[in-house]
Amino acid sequence: MRATQPAASPLLARDASTTLPEQLAARFAERIGQRLLAPGARLPSVRSCAQRHAVSPSTVVAAYDLLQARGLVEARPQRGHFVRDQRTARELQAPAARHAAATPPTRPPRPAPVDATALIRSMFQAQGGLPAPGMGTLPEAWLDAPLLQRALRRVCAEPEAWLRYGEPAGSQRLRNALAQRLADLGVAAAPAQIVTTLGATHALDLISRTLLQPGDAVLVDEPGWAVEYARLTRMGMRLLPVPRGHRPDGGPDLAVMEALLKAHKPRLYVTVSVLHNPTGASLSPAAAHQVLRLAEAHDLTIVEDDTYAWLAPPHGTRLAQLDGLKRTLYVSGFSKILVPQWRVGFVAAAPALAERLVDTKLVASLGTPGPLEEALALCLEQGSLRRHAERVGTLLAAARVRTVKMAREAGFEFVAPPAGLFGWVEVGADTEALAQALLDGGWLTAPGTLFHATPRPSTLMRVNFATSQDVRFWRQLRLCVAGLAAPGTSRHS
Amino acid sequence: MRATQPAASPLLARDASTTLPEQLAARFAERIGQRLLAPGARLPSVRSCAQRHAVSPSTVVAAYDLLQARGLVEARPQRGHFVRDQRTARELQAPAARHAAATPPTRPPRPAPVDATALIRSMFQAQGGLPAPGMGTLPEAWLDAPLLQRALRRVCAEPEAWLRYGEPAGSQRLRNALAQRLADLGVAAAPAQIVTTLGATHALDLISRTLLQPGDAVLVDEPGWAVEYARLTRMGMRLLPVPRGHRPDGGPDLAVMEALLKAHKPRLYVTVSVLHNPTGASLSPAAAHQVLRLAEAHDLTIVEDDTYAWLAPPHGTRLAQLDGLKRTLYVSGFSKILVPQWRVGFVAAAPALAERLVDTKLVASLGTPGPLEEALALCLEQGSLRRHAERVGTLLAAARVRTVKMAREAGFEFVAPPAGLFGWVEVGADTEALAQALLDGGWLTAPGTLFHATPRPSTLMRVNFATSQDVRFWRQLRLCVAGLAAPGTSRHS
Repeated sequence: MRATQPAASPLLARDASTTLPEQLAARFAERIGQRLLAPGARLPSVRSCAQRHAVSPSTVVAAYDLLQARGLVEARPQRGHFVRDQRTARELQAPAARHAAATPPTRPPRPAPVDATALIRSMFQAQGGLPAPGMGTLPEAWLDAPLLQRALRRVCAEPEAWLRYGEPAGSQRLRNALAQRLADLGVAAAPAQIVTTLGATHALDLISRTLLQPGDAVLVDEPGWAVEYARLTRMGMRLLPVPRGHRPDGGPDLAVMEALLKAHKPRLYVTVSVLHNPTGASLSPAAAHQVLRLAEAHDLTIVEDDTYAWLAPPHGTRLAQLDGLKRTLYVSGFSKILVPQWRVGFVAAAPALAERLVDTKLVASLGTPGPLEEALALCLEQGSLRRHAERVGTLLAAARVRTVKMAREAGFEFVAPPAGLFGWVEVGADTEALAQALLDGGWLTAPGTLFHATPRPSTLMRVNFATSQDVRFWRQLRLCVAGLAAPGTSRHS
Repeated sequence: MRATQPAASPLLARDASTTLPEQLAARFAERIGQRLLAPGARLPSVRSCAQRHAVSPSTVVAAYDLLQARGLVEARPQRGHFVRDQRTARELQAPAARHAAATPPTRPPRPAPVDATALIRSMFQAQGGLPAPGMGTLPEAWLDAPLLQRALRRVCAEPEAWLRYGEPAGSQRLRNALAQRLADLGVAAAPAQIVTTLGATHALDLISRTLLQPGDAVLVDEPGWAVEYARLTRMGMRLLPVPRGHRPDGGPDLAVMEALLKAHKPRLYVTVSVLHNPTGASLSPAAAHQVLRLAEAHDLTIVEDDTYAWLAPPHGTRLAQLDGLKRTLYVSGFSKILVPQWRVGFVAAAPALAERLVDTKLVASLGTPGPLEEALALCLEQGSLRRHAERVGTLLAAARVRTVKMAREAGFEFVAPPAGLFGWVEVGADTEALAQALLDGGWLTAPGTLFHATPRPSTLMRVNFATSQDVRFWRQLRLCVAGLAAPGTSRHS
């Protein structure tokens, strides 16, 4: 079975000044520090770790002992080594947390969504080196720096726009441009119905804070976006997952949805209609109509997260388009097309609700950064963003064809028709274990468990079509799958 | 008494195409729309309104009837006319709010902090026309546009810094510069202990979301900052006001604080140590020591809001300086010195707590805007911000001398020694009624009721030294006070 074994890590050096156990322990420690190995995660078995790194089992045992001595992992008899929750240890020192420990037991424990934050933190770390098939955004090389630089320079030359406190709802110029953009998508919204935010995530956050209270039930797509699950869970909401991505009409499972509506009376349904993350599914007009009918029958408010709008064909069906922002709120941003780090997004809602969202925005942060909103307004006004989006669309279509071909040649299948930025791939092995093995080779991937409201083992994996066009990745994936499946590399020691 | 009457509003025109009642109603409607007249506020009595606008009582009655017909105000027998809560009316149309109405009565009602949002909204509206003595920031003319433009242009030329996703904790460069700045203030913090935010308000928000749960008790300075009260109240916290600003040592009332600590076991104390808003009080080293001793005895965490740091002398005592960020978190930003609309702030905390704050930041907005953080890092690195702060300090000292002189000549006294940006003035009449009368003359003021955790009538007023150097304001204030106090202008009809 050694033939199908991934290559030993290039980072372990036999002639280094530190011993092999120390080197191995340092690598695990780094990964634990970065949360790429989340609290509660099991380290590989001694045998499989020894095989993967081409060292003796006693080296691995010594490395795990070092980690245990440093308080980073704990050994559980008959079960293996597990990453300790550093937070628990640290909280003993933090005054507020000591206080928390003294609270009566009737208080619910604070949820620790480590898996989701691990995913996001790893996104931030995927810089340089090999392409990251698990990335959630376009590769840096696809972004249009000159476009943004031109806009920023013009804003720089007009300080009167950003020397004042600004408007609570956000830049008037940007909201005018967004109203025009929404009209192009068939969504009628006046500028006064639009509130700018710090990206789509912040828009979803403001909505939750305005419309929900702890204990409320919320419908969410499953699979879906881990950050949304994590945020709602931290806020004390009850998540009600609705299966998504397996139907030909691209919509949610209406029977499950109706049953949940009857049983739990959820207040909100948070959903990505177009280019759903991670399946790529888009709602058909008929499915949109059915969802809205259900929402009307059960007095449900829908939050439509259109984060991937700029990567989608213009005729995609939005719930807000059919509904006219009566019981839908529309959320979008620019992280997936222009640049993630500028953090500009928005929400469009019924007029009275928009006012309430502004109140929430005011107490949460007083406002949003004017100069970047003005710059994005310029990009929208001049049509330069639309042209950039067309170029990205062409690149992405070609990347998708290449990636799908490579995946299929390596023997993998997509469980939903490939579309947009993400593919949802069946690999036939636990993708969380795979993710650790692939990381040893330098490949950052997004295991399926992160897209479930309640994390569970998954043989599915999300791949970014733009960053998975490397045949070496698919070969390595095939090797790792074979390695995990091989009897000689059982995960249990 | 007519001699001391403020001049009739220049906006009511007898030769206009609309009638006087319509004009008067339109002015009230506009103010209600802008929340300068908040829901629940009482309109002036018919008699005093008629006197103020130099119209007949029947004109006022007709105007109030128009407002009532439009659903903007309601008449309460024997009590007068009150602004209706538009939200209540609007929520009948919003789907989520309809849902809210159907929730069981055991659910606590959502608090509606209209007064605070009215204040903030009015801050955004104070643009052009007369100076606004109620403003919370420096006047636009004092800001240094070229300084910011230079920094922004340099950032623009270095796109590699903002084309990536950035770091969850915020720009490394800015955090390095902030660590240096904190060292200058005597607060030891490594860059890894610093998390950037969307201004100081957002920092306070992230802290609350990380350390508090609904129902927690929180100590706050009173008087204090309305937005902090509003946010904590909206989040379901119990506010425990601690009197501040009346002691020679600049500190809180320790006896009250200790009693509250014993009775309610609050989790946090949110306080402005240096140049407290609105009194201008700064904590003496002895007072800081006493506060920390109390905090230690009761295992209390302190959030030190140093929003006015750049306007204070460098030797001001910070709790974080004495405590070394063990049980204190330090918050600050740049809105009061560089420009409010860029929205960059930060929090410094113990290492483990900083990690938890990053997690909260991630789920709330993924990150903060890189380009503006890089620009502020440049301003800090090059010393240009420090030099700007020195210039502003000189301007402000001169403005303070002039404003204090004008105020005293008009017969008003400061209840705390004038310092920093704000003065806390005793005017001897209800400042909320005054604020409405002054607004008729074009002067935006900040009535004392907005600085109380539980709004109540107040004869105190916060003035911004930089925007109150106009002798016409103090004369108008004196006239309005006399008008309100005059027997012929009783507030009750």
